Amino acid sequence: NFDYAVSLRGPTACGLSLTENSVDATGCRFLRALLPSDLAGRSKGGQAQNGSVDVLDLLQGWGSGVGTYDDFNTIDWVREKSKDRDRHREISRKRRQSITALLLSVSDAFSGWLLMLLIGLMSGALAGGIDIAAHWLTDLKEGVCLNGFWFNHEHCCWNSKETTFQERHRCPQWKSWAELTVGVTEGASAYVVNYLMYVIWALLFSFLAVFLVRAFAPYACGSGIPEIKTILSGFIIRGYLGKWTLVIKTITLVLAVASGLSLGKEGPLVHVACCCGNIFCHLFTKYRKNEAKRREVLSAASAVGVSVAFGAPIGGVLFSLEEVSYYFPLKTLWRSFFAALVAAFTLRSINPFGNSRLVLFYVEFHTPWHLLELFPFVLLGIFGGLWGALFIRANIAWCRRRKATRLGRYPVLEVAVVSLATAVLAFPNDYTRMSGSELISELFNDCSLLDSSKLCDYGPLAKGGEPAGNLSEGTVGQAERPAGPGVYTAVWQLAMALLFKMAITVVTFGMKVPSGLFIPSMAVGAVAGRLLGIGMEQLAYYHHDWDMFHGWCSPGAHCITPGLYAMLGAAACLGGVTRMTVSLVVIMFELTGGLEYIVPLMAAVMTSKWVADALGREGIYEAHIRLNGYPFLEPKEEFVHKTLATDVMRPRRSDPPLSVVTQDGMTVEELEGLISDTSYSGFPVVVSPESHRLVGFVLRRDLVISIDNARRCQEGIVGVSRVIFTEHTPVEAQGAPPPLNLRAILDLSPLAITDHTPMEITVDIFRKLGLRQCLVTQNGRLLGIITKKDILKHMAQMANRDPDSILFN
Amino acid sequence: NFDYAVSLRGPTACGLSLTENSVDATGCRFLRALLPSDLAGRSKGGQAQNGSVDVLDLLQGWGSGVGTYDDFNTIDWVREKSKDRDRHREISRKRRQSITALLLSVSDAFSGWLLMLLIGLMSGALAGGIDIAAHWLTDLKEGVCLNGFWFNHEHCCWNSKETTFQERHRCPQWKSWAELTVGVTEGASAYVVNYLMYVIWALLFSFLAVFLVRAFAPYACGSGIPEIKTILSGFIIRGYLGKWTLVIKTITLVLAVASGLSLGKEGPLVHVACCCGNIFCHLFTKYRKNEAKRREVLSAASAVGVSVAFGAPIGGVLFSLEEVSYYFPLKTLWRSFFAALVAAFTLRSINPFGNSRLVLFYVEFHTPWHLLELFPFVLLGIFGGLWGALFIRANIAWCRRRKATRLGRYPVLEVAVVSLATAVLAFPNDYTRMSGSELISELFNDCSLLDSSKLCDYGPLAKGGEPAGNLSEGTVGQAERPAGPGVYTAVWQLAMALLFKMAITVVTFGMKVPSGLFIPSMAVGAVAGRLLGIGMEQLAYYHHDWDMFHGWCSPGAHCITPGLYAMLGAAACLGGVTRMTVSLVVIMFELTGGLEYIVPLMAAVMTSKWVADALGREGIYEAHIRLNGYPFLEPKEEFVHKTLATDVMRPRRSDPPLSVVTQDGMTVEELEGLISDTSYSGFPVVVSPESHRLVGFVLRRDLVISIDNARRCQEGIVGVSRVIFTEHTPVEAQGAPPPLNLRAILDLSPLAITDHTPMEITVDIFRKLGLRQCLVTQNGRLLGIITKKDILKHMAQMANRDPDSILFN
Repeated sequence: NFDYAVSLRGPTACGLSLTENSVDATGCRFLRALLPSDLAGRSKGGQAQNGSVDVLDLLQGWGSGVGTYDDFNTIDWVREKSKDRDRHREISRKRRQSITALLLSVSDAFSGWLLMLLIGLMSGALAGGIDIAAHWLTDLKEGVCLNGFWFNHEHCCWNSKETTFQERHRCPQWKSWAELTVGVTEGASAYVVNYLMYVIWALLFSFLAVFLVRAFAPYACGSGIPEIKTILSGFIIRGYLGKWTLVIKTITLVLAVASGLSLGKEGPLVHVACCCGNIFCHLFTKYRKNEAKRREVLSAASAVGVSVAFGAPIGGVLFSLEEVSYYFPLKTLWRSFFAALVAAFTLRSINPFGNSRLVLFYVEFHTPWHLLELFPFVLLGIFGGLWGALFIRANIAWCRRRKATRLGRYPVLEVAVVSLATAVLAFPNDYTRMSGSELISELFNDCSLLDSSKLCDYGPLAKGGEPAGNLSEGTVGQAERPAGPGVYTAVWQLAMALLFKMAITVVTFGMKVPSGLFIPSMAVGAVAGRLLGIGMEQLAYYHHDWDMFHGWCSPGAHCITPGLYAMLGAAACLGGVTRMTVSLVVIMFELTGGLEYIVPLMAAVMTSKWVADALGREGIYEAHIRLNGYPFLEPKEEFVHKTLATDVMRPRRSDPPLSVVTQDGMTVEELEGLISDTSYSGFPVVVSPESHRLVGFVLRRDLVISIDNARRCQEGIVGVSRVIFTEHTPVEAQGAPPPLNLRAILDLSPLAITDHTPMEITVDIFRKLGLRQCLVTQNGRLLGIITKKDILKHMAQMANRDPDSILFN
Repeated sequence: NFDYAVSLRGPTACGLSLTENSVDATGCRFLRALLPSDLAGRSKGGQAQNGSVDVLDLLQGWGSGVGTYDDFNTIDWVREKSKDRDRHREISRKRRQSITALLLSVSDAFSGWLLMLLIGLMSGALAGGIDIAAHWLTDLKEGVCLNGFWFNHEHCCWNSKETTFQERHRCPQWKSWAELTVGVTEGASAYVVNYLMYVIWALLFSFLAVFLVRAFAPYACGSGIPEIKTILSGFIIRGYLGKWTLVIKTITLVLAVASGLSLGKEGPLVHVACCCGNIFCHLFTKYRKNEAKRREVLSAASAVGVSVAFGAPIGGVLFSLEEVSYYFPLKTLWRSFFAALVAAFTLRSINPFGNSRLVLFYVEFHTPWHLLELFPFVLLGIFGGLWGALFIRANIAWCRRRKATRLGRYPVLEVAVVSLATAVLAFPNDYTRMSGSELISELFNDCSLLDSSKLCDYGPLAKGGEPAGNLSEGTVGQAERPAGPGVYTAVWQLAMALLFKMAITVVTFGMKVPSGLFIPSMAVGAVAGRLLGIGMEQLAYYHHDWDMFHGWCSPGAHCITPGLYAMLGAAACLGGVTRMTVSLVVIMFELTGGLEYIVPLMAAVMTSKWVADALGREGIYEAHIRLNGYPFLEPKEEFVHKTLATDVMRPRRSDPPLSVVTQDGMTVEELEGLISDTSYSGFPVVVSPESHRLVGFVLRRDLVISIDNARRCQEGIVGVSRVIFTEHTPVEAQGAPPPLNLRAILDLSPLAITDHTPMEITVDIFRKLGLRQCLVTQNGRLLGIITKKDILKHMAQMANRDPDSILFN
């Protein structure tokens, strides 16, 4: 529409359509009146230009700020998309005029793809760097490589020729801290020294992380996903995706992961990818100047984040679609997929895991599952759902406490204490000492005969056990065996690790360091799943004569895969915490690479979601959004209450009447008075105060800037000048100051609904069109206004009144 | 809103909320005034009920038809969703009152899942049945099994003990027609007899197919996807998804596939699955009574269709999301996925392909691809794009010709002629004689050493050729070899097959038999790709000293996989025809089961889409939608023209003024006159003809039904009775007939936009909210109305004026 077109044409197409321009000393911008031809053509007959040319020119200055947003404000999607279409039309129109313009138009069309390529490359490279650095620092807690301190344990021993595959973790070049300082590798003193060094390094890393975050980029803490969801829904948080946040988040993420805290790097990687996206947006005017277009790019970037986190490009795209994005057109789907693939392949060519695999946890199971196993799978789902719901409650309660009490004032101390506790408690237990992703890898792993880990320490086959006929080829030689002493130790340690992880994760998530939830949640689930799996396996071994095992688990057959149970447990817990569904199943499917296990996965994830939803309908990200009070209109939940627009709109019955601007009856002074008396971010413009017939809507920010500019730059504008919003500027009486025509900043197409419109429809309109405000009319008269904030407030009220209204939706 | 609530409560919740009811002889329905409590509570103070109770009761009759739609009409999404939320609220409200109601509410919540399960099971079973039957009938064209005529060739020889794996296609039980009739298996006479029988069977099958379609279910022809897209966007075509269509489409699909026509079963399977979905919807009131909810189910059903067609559940869901669906909430995503999985596993347990694989074309390639190969891959993309665009143009031109000329009047003859031509031309060439899916399988196949097909007839290794060092394990022994005579024959035949398929598919698609496009498109691409692949392979063999092969294709290495080229060609052609992107890549990825080839796939599909879009922006389905003139508002294309609502709305400047109804100034006679004089499907209700201030909107159908009912059943309603739409019924003068209050059918929340609203925003609002019509106001006065049809007409006009405006979008 008219005004948007103008406010846009200033910043983007000015140099193309206007031949001369200059800026005077006061900062005003005078542009010789060469209006773009289509603009003149639009105003039927051209009369409109008579009075408003000066204003149009005035508003076209680059610095005027009309059409931009303040920090912590909501964008107007309709306006932004309109701006982009205007820009696009301008380019299309020019295309036929010259070769340069044609080239510009082609480059404009492909700039989106180029941007995706850049984001993919950069995010892939950063993710690779983070992986390598975190791996190195994690190993530094245990020892150092003599060949060069920059080698990690594995790399150090790779270079050594003296090691065999079996002994790949022991080589003379790698020295533990005890070996270096007291010269012994075994015994109590070595243990104490290693313990001490582990704790000291962990403290150092976490302190550095929290210090850097506090000092340079406060936005770098947390997982970032709640904020990104809010930003994608149309909120502005300046600097949240800036270059400082990117740099500091990347560094502190490495430190936080290396410190051994119970956190993951997946959520923060989404934030890092979005920062890359936002920064690269500045290279292209199309995306720099348009908040809606930029959000399309950010949606794709969040897909990239998950793609590099798990090596799961399809899962990443679905994650962005299902969990993060607000506005996800099909074009974005296709571009996200491209970017996610580029990122995954960049990561693969960096090869941080040293196994040529894209995925974080590569597993291959060979044993088919039996229908009866669905029972333990559903149990895992219930566990995941319960844990998810409880975790969210506990974490939110803890975060509330942090906000409300003195705890919140000492974030550095908090991190130090939690980190100390984590390190001290984690070191004695093998399964907590290793990093979260190593733990999950180990638990997902199916024991082959060559495996030397404790978890695979099975006893010899019982006598008479011979492979049964129904084995698939992959399982020959992997018959069910009794658990050895190693397995019993492992079970004991895993149980301790489970309790520890469950408790420590609650206090860790939300601290002032970058912290993701995916890995800790999956770790809890994987431990629980593996324990259940081992239990089932031993049950099947010792009691294969039971009815339930009859027919599918004969003696000597390999019928139960504890690794699969671990995988399902991980999926169930992650599902319970985040309430992801399809994307989670697809990520897990990409991790294992087989359709074979999709039914168990579905069963576990579905059960988990149902159980968790029954106990509390918000996922962790929504809960944090609500905790922080972000203005986020959840697109998934339906509004189920039977209220009308008239119940929500302002002014209420008892309030003073709605502040309106009349289209030709107010002076500059009156307007300034209205602006200073109220704090509304916009005013409806009506024909006259009596009729209350709606003409348009004008934004406070635009009004302030325009009046200010006019007073400084336009001759004859004084306090008593009339401000008019009509198409034709009326002729003023002799002696009166010239009027100020502000039709250019008037939104002539504000959306209006009737007072009888049900709120469910109103909420739908707000969500789908991305509105900031909506006017309410009754029988054609303007009655009030509903803003996004009013709706959020109303929804919160209704939810409090009837908390389980959504349960069976 | 008020009126919707009423029209709904009649059909669904009537028995629950109203204690007594009876239907009198005239069909009127009298309900003792026991209004649902929340309804009474809504009308602040209850005065509203005074005059309108009778009308409310009247409209609550089951048979009244208020709130339903005529055939070939567009549904009102807002109203339907509103209805569903009312129903939902009613159930939630009752939940706490009794155990029965609680159980009802739980069963209501889970009915969606149950429905998905049923659709999955049924569609999987039907797809399995279709596969088996089509396979059997296809083989019947060549011969018959002596053990039982119901065995197909493969099955027949499986049962025979005398065959080896190599000779699995020859067994004494299977007799070709020549063997049975003239007693010889070789020679000219045998060839002639087999040829003749092949043609006769083909003719018979295709005649049966077209006869059944014509006689019993005309909607069963074609692929059905254009119509399903239209239905999902909110159009009503009664019977299109009915049980007759299902039965006939299933049977004729088998016949059409077996007849050897150049068509596939994938599109029709989507139609079949949607029929299942629609039929099962009738089991649940929730879905039977609500057009919007039913469309959610149909979206899921179309995912099921692709899932069973290709054994690709994720691809199916993405296909539904990207290509078919209009309104796809996240809840549907999750349910679609569930249904698609159920269907895939049902199909697998039926095991129609006899290989325990879910997928139609299972391939596993072992050779990595080289960066330089991207060049031929992009070439395939260009071929695919060109062919896609040309095919669409040729097919649309042919269909137009069919519609315009006498050709269209003889569909049975047309099918017979095309079928005769296909059979006569196809028999002599091995690659056209086999069915489309067999051909694709064969072309995708990577030659192993054991393979005996012509395509794998390679000569011995050249001297000095020894396996190079850079081989992956899978390729040992598969070194590049010179093509043998078999390969040369195959190349020749494939080239002929390519030309034949390209020509015959153009005339086949659109005939009055069920016909899908996926398989023929893929076949064309696969042939082209295989030819290019063989060319590249031989080039690499004979010229491995060329610079381009240097370093990656040393003598004796296996560096080029012709099967991969075939796969990429198939994807490129399918992409060019349908313009699918992500879903296509995912389907292909699910077919091959490896992330390894996603980059080549992306390159080919992306090139193909770009090339095809440059030549014509519509995919085949959109082109057919436009050809048939369905009212479909394409959600993918952006409206780029700079027109305003005032340019599109009716009445135009020269037209008579807008027909409106006043809220309290018209009599029954005047209203009836208005209805008979005009053909609009609804009328705005205004305060008075002078002020033109909008009160609401009333639908013609509702108005007709209500007046008719009132005249029959309500005492004292005569021609001069006043019709009022206000909340309070005014007291009439002494002697005047009682007024008829129709506020219950008044939509109090019609959406209104201003005349200055740009059409791009208007189109967006129509798309996103699923509107049927929208009112246009100027300064608070009602000015005109825009319907979906006006928008479609306007878009067509603008597209004609500026045909390539969308090209660089």
